[in-house]
Amino acid sequence: MTGLLSRGGSDAVALLLVGDELLLGSVADTNGAWLARRFTQAGLRVVLSRVVPDDVARIAEAVRALCAEVGAVVVSGGLGPTSDDLTRQALADVAGCPLVADDAAVAAITDWYATRGRTPDAGVLRMAQRPSCARMLVNPQGSAPGVRVEIGASVVYAVPGVPSELYAMVDGVVLADLMERVGGLPAHLSESFEVALLGESAVSALLGDVEALVADDPSTDLAYLARPAHVSVRLSVRDLDPAAAASRHARWSALVAQALGDHVMGRDGVTLPEVVVASLTARRETVGAAESLTGGRVTEALTSVAGASAVLRGGVVAYAGDIKQSLLGVPADLVRARGTVDPDVAVAMAQGARVLLGSTWGVATTGVAGPEPVDDHAVGTVHVAVDGPAGPVVRSLALPGERNRVRRLSSAHALDLLRRRLRSAESSEGLDR
Amino acid sequence: MTGLLSRGGSDAVALLLVGDELLLGSVADTNGAWLARRFTQAGLRVVLSRVVPDDVARIAEAVRALCAEVGAVVVSGGLGPTSDDLTRQALADVAGCPLVADDAAVAAITDWYATRGRTPDAGVLRMAQRPSCARMLVNPQGSAPGVRVEIGASVVYAVPGVPSELYAMVDGVVLADLMERVGGLPAHLSESFEVALLGESAVSALLGDVEALVADDPSTDLAYLARPAHVSVRLSVRDLDPAAAASRHARWSALVAQALGDHVMGRDGVTLPEVVVASLTARRETVGAAESLTGGRVTEALTSVAGASAVLRGGVVAYAGDIKQSLLGVPADLVRARGTVDPDVAVAMAQGARVLLGSTWGVATTGVAGPEPVDDHAVGTVHVAVDGPAGPVVRSLALPGERNRVRRLSSAHALDLLRRRLRSAESSEGLDR
Repeated sequence: MTGLLSRGGSDAVALLLVGDELLLGSVADTNGAWLARRFTQAGLRVVLSRVVPDDVARIAEAVRALCAEVGAVVVSGGLGPTSDDLTRQALADVAGCPLVADDAAVAAITDWYATRGRTPDAGVLRMAQRPSCARMLVNPQGSAPGVRVEIGASVVYAVPGVPSELYAMVDGVVLADLMERVGGLPAHLSESFEVALLGESAVSALLGDVEALVADDPSTDLAYLARPAHVSVRLSVRDLDPAAAASRHARWSALVAQALGDHVMGRDGVTLPEVVVASLTARRETVGAAESLTGGRVTEALTSVAGASAVLRGGVVAYAGDIKQSLLGVPADLVRARGTVDPDVAVAMAQGARVLLGSTWGVATTGVAGPEPVDDHAVGTVHVAVDGPAGPVVRSLALPGERNRVRRLSSAHALDLLRRRLRSAESSEGLDR
Repeated sequence: MTGLLSRGGSDAVALLLVGDELLLGSVADTNGAWLARRFTQAGLRVVLSRVVPDDVARIAEAVRALCAEVGAVVVSGGLGPTSDDLTRQALADVAGCPLVADDAAVAAITDWYATRGRTPDAGVLRMAQRPSCARMLVNPQGSAPGVRVEIGASVVYAVPGVPSELYAMVDGVVLADLMERVGGLPAHLSESFEVALLGESAVSALLGDVEALVADDPSTDLAYLARPAHVSVRLSVRDLDPAAAASRHARWSALVAQALGDHVMGRDGVTLPEVVVASLTARRETVGAAESLTGGRVTEALTSVAGASAVLRGGVVAYAGDIKQSLLGVPADLVRARGTVDPDVAVAMAQGARVLLGSTWGVATTGVAGPEPVDDHAVGTVHVAVDGPAGPVVRSLALPGERNRVRRLSSAHALDLLRRRLRSAESSEGLDR
């Protein structure tokens, strides 16, 4: 380890994203997430990220501050040909070297334009300038070269903000240069446990004992990421000794898996529809849906997975009440006596879908999405049902939130009920053997 | 103007996004873009944005630095119930006030849990803590309250990072508090034109002449926001004189509307499903869907709109080929001769949906989402059809992109075809009168 990147840890990197458009919200920043993921995968740690406008003083101030904190800074944007491209000037100001024209870059840009039948103007030729103490980074995808400059004990890489050019330059030159500079890195093992339909605090409560143990191991980290109807629990272990990292990772992973039990639907980013499609595919079985308040969301989620056509027969969106009877065969007496927001109606819909669509499994949703209550049933009153070879099962819910949250959660509950039925079918078959 | 926000300009705001996951790249930051857009729309300027990990010292350092630069800082994330939620502690450290339990927040959280049949544990009750010099901000969407604290001459608003909660709190309390604090701003008139299914460059080409004129008016701005299958064109006019702002806004608005013609489906954030539901509601007509590759996305989009139940009869997801025949009555000869990826099959599906579901209009999709071609039809080959009182119409497409992009665009094209049919029905009725 060279010690060059020692401030903030030898493997610490900061990001600086330049551009007015990022602060107007007119475009979402995708470069930040991509850079963070790439450096994390390489075993580096992105510890800070900043966004600044196209303002030479703001860019310079941020570069100066980040170089005081970490040994490597990656700057994205502000390298194009227009008057609001100011990253080169800011780097020259911070490094204390004047901007000079780089002969090789002038030649490359002139060539790049010549092959397109054009001649570079003065603005374009500004892209060939660099601080005299910096060197250029070749851009294989575009005409704007990058810049590499050392500022104090830190290194700064500036690359264009155009995603295809940024990707190519980071993968082609920045990562290699940085890894060489860093020297050896600790082994980094990371795994995530995907949990459907439990809140972050409920997941954290299940993991209370494991959290307390992890707190005593400074090289291990347990982090939560809450998404709609889904929490990811990420376990990360670092150690200079790869064998020690692997053995500690195995130990923690087993403890997390045990604490979360069958709330874990899968690992490493898998989603509920992916788990259901994979399980049905393995069993060579099919599913059909009958949806009321979810309006097609259950089948939509399943068809978002490539390969769904092998397991999804189809679905019926029975939004108007009479369609539940005419297409799905829900008994008219039952609807007359209890309305359509009823657990037995959900079961009859699941059975009807199975018959109508000729599938191994039927899944159904009915309930009140809002904004208004229906027949004295409050918004969020929902019944989801699954029918299959071993008979029907229903889950009745009082869901929080507004219309589209209720619909999203209802769809997730329907798929989760099917996931658990498929899993228990698998275990009972395992016991039979 | 109070001068309280004078550093960085009276209307300057900084964002601080807290969370390890943002620096691991495991999730893209969408809150930053949303916040930037919202504050920009309100006439404020977001001048800086930073991302820091779940580390109390890093959060505190960033809050301190941003408060030294601007008069208002919005912090997102780190307010949940788990041990890595450290924003409250960081704010207490910077403000120099200890954390205390807020009685009203304890009661609200206890209630929130009680209505769900649960009792809050110690972790959850940490969410009721605030720096003693701060006040709580009510969260209408979740259990974690926000925090408002003054640090020197600056104000800091901390809100949860869960998008639905963040949106509700910023719109419900943060913006109003901030605007009151800022005092008068130049009159700011802003309007957006919603365009479906044209790319950003195509929209910009249509507006070329208007753009050239706007470039000469420094107080007027034309900005594009590209979303999936949708571009918003935002026209903004600022002027210290409200009457001058209004007259210039009216002039530009008419020019933009003329240049975009019937590509404009509506104004100010309206979506394609909302336009279709509103048009059907006004006409007291209904729609039914027959979907193949979109898998329920068309009905799902319609049911996301409150009030859809008055106009949507239902839908059939005919994912397996035989269901197109058995349920929708697509002629077996036609499928045998041409397969299911065919414009006449799309028309037969739309007609079948209309008959089966008893609706005024039928809409249908068939095509190849991928990843593999079907019967020599390339991925992206799609036919959408609408059948209605004046007969059927079909739109055949070769769509770019991967599976879920093809499915998303197909659904948008189906709804756009229906929107245009409804609009031409309206105009011909207008002519008849």
